[in-house]
Amino acid sequence: MPADGSTDAQVDLCRYGSGTVTTAAAESARYNRALMTPWRTALVHSDATHIWMRGRSLTRLMQEATFTDVIALLHLGRLPSPGERRLLDAILIGVADHGAGAPSCAAARLAASGNRQSLSAAVAAGILTIGDEHGGAGSNCMELIAASLGAAARDGATPEQAAGAAVASAVAAGRRLPGLGHRVHSTDPRVAVLFEMARAERVAGDGIRFMAALEAEAAARIKPIPMNIDGALAAVLHDMGFPPAAGRFLFIVGRVAGLTAEVAEEHQRERPMRIKFDVEYDGAPPEPE
Amino acid sequence: MPADGSTDAQVDLCRYGSGTVTTAAAESARYNRALMTPWRTALVHSDATHIWMRGRSLTRLMQEATFTDVIALLHLGRLPSPGERRLLDAILIGVADHGAGAPSCAAARLAASGNRQSLSAAVAAGILTIGDEHGGAGSNCMELIAASLGAAARDGATPEQAAGAAVASAVAAGRRLPGLGHRVHSTDPRVAVLFEMARAERVAGDGIRFMAALEAEAAARIKPIPMNIDGALAAVLHDMGFPPAAGRFLFIVGRVAGLTAEVAEEHQRERPMRIKFDVEYDGAPPEPE
Amino acid sequence: MPADGSTDAQVDLCRYGSGTVTTAAAESARYNRALMTPWRTALVHSDATHIWMRGRSLTRLMQEATFTDVIALLHLGRLPSPGERRLLDAILIGVADHGAGAPSCAAARLAASGNRQSLSAAVAAGILTIGDEHGGAGSNCMELIAASLGAAARDGATPEQAAGAAVASAVAAGRRLPGLGHRVHSTDPRVAVLFEMARAERVAGDGIRFMAALEAEAAARIKPIPMNIDGALAAVLHDMGFPPAAGRFLFIVGRVAGLTAEVAEEHQRERPMRIKFDVEYDGAPPEPE
Amino acid sequence: MPADGSTDAQVDLCRYGSGTVTTAAAESARYNRALMTPWRTALVHSDATHIWMRGRSLTRLMQEATFTDVIALLHLGRLPSPGERRLLDAILIGVADHGAGAPSCAAARLAASGNRQSLSAAVAAGILTIGDEHGGAGSNCMELIAASLGAAARDGATPEQAAGAAVASAVAAGRRLPGLGHRVHSTDPRVAVLFEMARAERVAGDGIRFMAALEAEAAARIKPIPMNIDGALAAVLHDMGFPPAAGRFLFIVGRVAGLTAEVAEEHQRERPMRIKFDVEYDGAPPEPE
Repeated sequence: MPADGSTDAQVDLCRYGSGTVTTAAAESARYNRALMTPWRTALVHSDATHIWMRGRSLTRLMQEATFTDVIALLHLGRLPSPGERRLLDAILIGVADHGAGAPSCAAARLAASGNRQSLSAAVAAGILTIGDEHGGAGSNCMELIAASLGAAARDGATPEQAAGAAVASAVAAGRRLPGLGHRVHSTDPRVAVLFEMARAERVAGDGIRFMAALEAEAAARIKPIPMNIDGALAAVLHDMGFPPAAGRFLFIVGRVAGLTAEVAEEHQRERPMRIKFDVEYDGAPPEPE
Repeated sequence: MPADGSTDAQVDLCRYGSGTVTTAAAESARYNRALMTPWRTALVHSDATHIWMRGRSLTRLMQEATFTDVIALLHLGRLPSPGERRLLDAILIGVADHGAGAPSCAAARLAASGNRQSLSAAVAAGILTIGDEHGGAGSNCMELIAASLGAAARDGATPEQAAGAAVASAVAAGRRLPGLGHRVHSTDPRVAVLFEMARAERVAGDGIRFMAALEAEAAARIKPIPMNIDGALAAVLHDMGFPPAAGRFLFIVGRVAGLTAEVAEEHQRERPMRIKFDVEYDGAPPEPE
Repeated sequence: MPADGSTDAQVDLCRYGSGTVTTAAAESARYNRALMTPWRTALVHSDATHIWMRGRSLTRLMQEATFTDVIALLHLGRLPSPGERRLLDAILIGVADHGAGAPSCAAARLAASGNRQSLSAAVAAGILTIGDEHGGAGSNCMELIAASLGAAARDGATPEQAAGAAVASAVAAGRRLPGLGHRVHSTDPRVAVLFEMARAERVAGDGIRFMAALEAEAAARIKPIPMNIDGALAAVLHDMGFPPAAGRFLFIVGRVAGLTAEVAEEHQRERPMRIKFDVEYDGAPPEPE
Repeated sequence: MPADGSTDAQVDLCRYGSGTVTTAAAESARYNRALMTPWRTALVHSDATHIWMRGRSLTRLMQEATFTDVIALLHLGRLPSPGERRLLDAILIGVADHGAGAPSCAAARLAASGNRQSLSAAVAAGILTIGDEHGGAGSNCMELIAASLGAAARDGATPEQAAGAAVASAVAAGRRLPGLGHRVHSTDPRVAVLFEMARAERVAGDGIRFMAALEAEAAARIKPIPMNIDGALAAVLHDMGFPPAAGRFLFIVGRVAGLTAEVAEEHQRERPMRIKFDVEYDGAPPEPE
């Protein structure tokens, strides 16, 4: 008895037109093939005495590489250069934790407060708050960079021209520019550090040129909106060759270091159920009992 | 020390133009107000001896209402009619569980298999598989119904004409029509039951007219693609006045009944870590040790 | 290539002594059998045109049963009597939502605040806060009831004597009694309602006798600590034949109705990232830059 | 209106006896103080232009430290020595990913398969499978080491004697020994590498002595059960001064590197809803429709 779900047959049909008619028998045959087919992966292989990651001996990696190298290996398919590794370390450190009141840390603490039996449940609750609005500006900004520089490459435009076009288009649409602005810091101290390191390590490329121009262009056409850590890490990750989704994944990897520490502190220092909120009811008037 | 995060100041700026310049001081003041302001809610209110839900006495609801009534009360803001209650019951039952191999049930079992300490973690893992591709067709279909009928109302068109336009637009864009097709059932047995009940209970309205026309139109212009439970529940929920997101929420509520039972069965009948997968490596060749 | 993991071979060995030596070959053979063996379930079965739940036609259930009936069917293996159904409805309503500031609701809102892309992620974050400390007293209390009444049955003691022994043992060990006390309500209004309904519907049995005696005994030997909803639902569910874990599962099912409504309200009424916390640093002194 | 929940007042009472009677007014006052009190943390502090982690400048850490250093800083409260950093890197690499079929990776892929909208939801589903049975042997083993060496210190016994006592007690109770045995590897290749590195870097202490003796003692008294990665990392982390819970947290941090890569691969290479399971129904016989 198979899984329930949606309409794979219809997907193909609507995608490729009504020329090919997928019969129920054909669909059922495809289903059975899927059931028998092993999952495929290019990440990890092992036998009774060895493990390989992306083809490299895991035990050799344990002896010769850093955790950050392996994060890059898993997501880029290759080990980073020493300069790239330094930049990645800086990015992962930069997003690891920014205070117990961030949604991710607060949700992890709430879960630790009500459910002391599962450390992983508390960490997972923290991760679930990560989306476009929290921790997601990096990947959204990487999409903007990739799309803008891709269009510029087709049109023979410079990164600076691409940034001008991006600001114009955001202003016209009344749309937010990812990577600029911060609700706490007037100047995010992590940005300058990351860009200096990228230049010193010669990792800087068109992504950084684009984001610097975007900040300048926004200041000229809107008002000064300083770049934030998301914009800076997006530029650097783009220049290292990461795809946009990696902006989200690396934020998660870095933040998990902080979330685990927040959960540990909540367990060590606080009573269960200690977190309180003040809530005001403004709905339908309470009926008498 | 406040939460980290993204760029609230800039949101407003880009949204409302550069006329209003949000200074750091103004932003900081807004932040502090938010900190002091109690959360607002129109759902539940309580004092030392009473609880009210949407203004109704919770203890009276416990004595006079069904759980399904309260689900409607929370999401619609009113108690359902007896006919609406029967339809809602049928929908919640219809999505509760469709087999242990569905992604939601399988993920819940995997989590129960590795993490026996937290029943809630296993249930949550199951819920996390629910998205546009699994369990999400209902809300996506409700968005199509609402948008299509909204446009038809503006244009003086019938639900049938709206369905014709929706099929034409999906074919032109090579896009899938939510609510039609199923990967297992040639005819989903739940659809006819739901529609008969809706007609008998006089809950049926333009949503059901639209979906019936969509199925017929797709059969005429593409090929017979029978309606699935997602399409049927979308039509019924639309006709009861639920917003599109309720399609997703009610799927979750119904499915949690099944997920909890799947986790209970995994705990009762199976050893930890009993689930195995066959995985085939096709990546970079393993280096010699 | 199989899953990683822990030490199934050793489990058996340590459990059953060193008489049987599980060789690597035997272990590998068992692994391969597991890979080939379909999952087993007694919950749901389907073919191309029918679905059965616990052997009952799902479409007939959709027409004739309530959602609450099906929750009981999944967890008890049988449909409830009308009185049992009323009690279950009252329990599910009683735990559905108790205010936006409960850890489960607050965590769901935090996730909705940072991650607007996935409704299921926000609901799951709320569920993850449910553990022994939040929403878990019901199942813990059911374990106390089952263990105490089980011991009483063996010893020929009454439920009242069992309750006396439970209070004595908790006092001696300085241990908390699940099901008594509440941090908000001096008298939880839901308790009396549930017990009156249980008596009127003739669902009340030894579980309710035990919990009533526990409350009286604690008042006599410690101080008045009124029973809470967890204690009341534990007594009723025990008397209906549910296993202790069902206390946790039914809390989750009921609470998901509230969590989905809390997430819906957060989306409808609030800006992303609106939730703020005041955090005070008391760690190592900040070094100068 | 406050959070619902359990019985803080009663906790104290049962813990500290009936001498102190917590009145409702006192409880209410404590609740209000909790509401007004900022959260406390010793992890991260920031102002408008600076961020500090454990008192250290975050921007200096970004320039001078590695991500692994910061993981240690967050969990140990101090930066590691170069040798400790190498060991930590090896541990995090060693647990990062052991194949797509592990429960954590498989659950992440299932969630990615049904819910393509939220990368964080898929990663969280993977984390939720981590518990005592999957990824949890490290922390459980650290508890055994800490308890055994603590008792030995009180009794003036050696780590070897402590290991002998631990094996004897496990055999007597028919209990599993955490850290020994593996379901895939006859010899886990990661163990020898970790122990060699620990000795070379002079990180090895009583934890490693204890675990080596535990393996030898189990071989003598039960049968050869080779140490697994969990046992090895537990020994090393104990010798570096980490508390037992850190075994679980560091497994999560390392595994998230792999989970994010598994989710990325699922998105890149696979269709939604492609995962199938073979399920066999063995419950109540299906009734005729």
